Amino acid sequence: MATGEFELIARYFERPSDDRDLLLGIGDDAAVVRADGALAVAVDTLVAGVHFPLDLPAEAAGFRALAVNLSDMAAMGAEPRWCTLALTLPDADEAWVSEFADGLLGLAERYGVALIGGDLTRGPLTISVQIIGTLADAAPLTRAGGHIGDDVYVTGTLGDAAAGLALLNDTAAADEPAGIALKDRFLRPTPRVAAGRALTGVASAAIDVSDGLLADLGHICAASDCGAQIDVEHLPLSAEILSLFPLNVAEFYALGGGDDYELCFTAAPAQAASVEAALRTAGCPVRRIGHLVAGTGVECRRDGQRFAPAFAGYTHF
Amino acid sequence: MATGEFELIARYFERPSDDRDLLLGIGDDAAVVRADGALAVAVDTLVAGVHFPLDLPAEAAGFRALAVNLSDMAAMGAEPRWCTLALTLPDADEAWVSEFADGLLGLAERYGVALIGGDLTRGPLTISVQIIGTLADAAPLTRAGGHIGDDVYVTGTLGDAAAGLALLNDTAAADEPAGIALKDRFLRPTPRVAAGRALTGVASAAIDVSDGLLADLGHICAASDCGAQIDVEHLPLSAEILSLFPLNVAEFYALGGGDDYELCFTAAPAQAASVEAALRTAGCPVRRIGHLVAGTGVECRRDGQRFAPAFAGYTHF
Repeated sequence: MATGEFELIARYFERPSDDRDLLLGIGDDAAVVRADGALAVAVDTLVAGVHFPLDLPAEAAGFRALAVNLSDMAAMGAEPRWCTLALTLPDADEAWVSEFADGLLGLAERYGVALIGGDLTRGPLTISVQIIGTLADAAPLTRAGGHIGDDVYVTGTLGDAAAGLALLNDTAAADEPAGIALKDRFLRPTPRVAAGRALTGVASAAIDVSDGLLADLGHICAASDCGAQIDVEHLPLSAEILSLFPLNVAEFYALGGGDDYELCFTAAPAQAASVEAALRTAGCPVRRIGHLVAGTGVECRRDGQRFAPAFAGYTHF
Repeated sequence: MATGEFELIARYFERPSDDRDLLLGIGDDAAVVRADGALAVAVDTLVAGVHFPLDLPAEAAGFRALAVNLSDMAAMGAEPRWCTLALTLPDADEAWVSEFADGLLGLAERYGVALIGGDLTRGPLTISVQIIGTLADAAPLTRAGGHIGDDVYVTGTLGDAAAGLALLNDTAAADEPAGIALKDRFLRPTPRVAAGRALTGVASAAIDVSDGLLADLGHICAASDCGAQIDVEHLPLSAEILSLFPLNVAEFYALGGGDDYELCFTAAPAQAASVEAALRTAGCPVRRIGHLVAGTGVECRRDGQRFAPAFAGYTHF
């Protein structure tokens, strides 16, 4: 199909927006937005065959590519506003592009985000989304604000996305509801944007769980110049993962599996009630799993005894 | 080499910045900048083997990836300020990454742009840069502001980059100074940022010449709801291209070859003196090559007679 870049963009990616701060949208050399104050800016790339299976449904690829960026905004306590898309495609498969656009733009609409620009190129399937969010007067949640003695929390449940990815890769997997739910956690993660915004002024440090809890909490530790102890029995595990996997496998996914896009954050013990209140308002479950300690790195404990997990999270190279 | 993403980023991409509006740089879930007013936002992707030869020197790949984005800012009349980098690499070749970073960051420094974030992933070589520029009180230069009767101008010279790419692909090419200069026009294009800023309030429409003059002027025509006539004998051709290629080949490259990253813009005839003055101040050569007319599309003329070029510019799909 000899459809050019410009026709594809116009047909599938240009949608009306009621964003009053969007002064010029898709179609010129750049978009123009109106901003006032601090902005959070992030970019995340998904490579087919590396970050997701080559046969991922196009709608899920679009959803996921934006969701991981919304999650970065959540981890900063920012309100996501505008995104751009750099989409590299092996060919101009219009059905794929249409479904991909539906997945991305459907999620964008739910979060009040406008797609303001992009670049469509030919090559191996690579999806890079950049996102811009507003912080207004809120100080951003960074990785560096943790203090020794702060509690360590995670939102939602951990390990589901890694379990779901394992099920996706296992063609013999049963299509029972628990399996479908876990696969959906990988395909369509829920970015914790409302939770992140509610935690500004409450949490001392935050990160989203993309590479795995141990790796990501490790980043908070490194940036905050301390260590962490977590109690493995406090890991929040879903009924779905526990119904399909043995406890030790579920824990393994919860500690080392990435892609959950929950928030891991720290807060002073005196903020415990504020943490509960903030996340109740945001409609987001939360669990305290440990605390920051002197030293470096993340130590896991079970029944008060040191416990050595088999691996320490995703490394990009 | 088992160097992780975080070490590579820290080692090669993190440099000190004296940007007072950069509140939080590389290393967290997002960067944080302070903005006030209209912002221009653009993204451009370069795919190895599609947009540049696979054996392009790493330094030139880094230079070019930023230059094409700076050029988008130039075409809007914006001042480029911050960029992010989504870099997908087949392997963690530290020498390549180091040279790439030098190329990108060296150019960034020359233009006062800070690299504020990025994502380093494994996969086929793909470089996507997003850029954010400030417009302050200036109205952006868009593609849509042209009027019938406006003059059509281009900065610099056209065709050099396409000629340079042809020389790069021709291993028998002589290493004489003109050839080296043309190859450099492809490898290290000069974004016309100062010219773009000087043209705000003077030009009626603008675009950068990335896909080829006919294609890009065609975008101005489509957005401005008019046509254009250009005089082929007025095309600005460099001494270098004329020394190595016959006139008809040079014209062919100037009309259809992309990658020059000059500006093509329109202005009312009454603005002719202001155009000259603005670009003299910016130190940028300019040539009037035609004017906007009623109708659609771009018509080429030679000696007042219609002239049909062999092709109409780069199509991404």
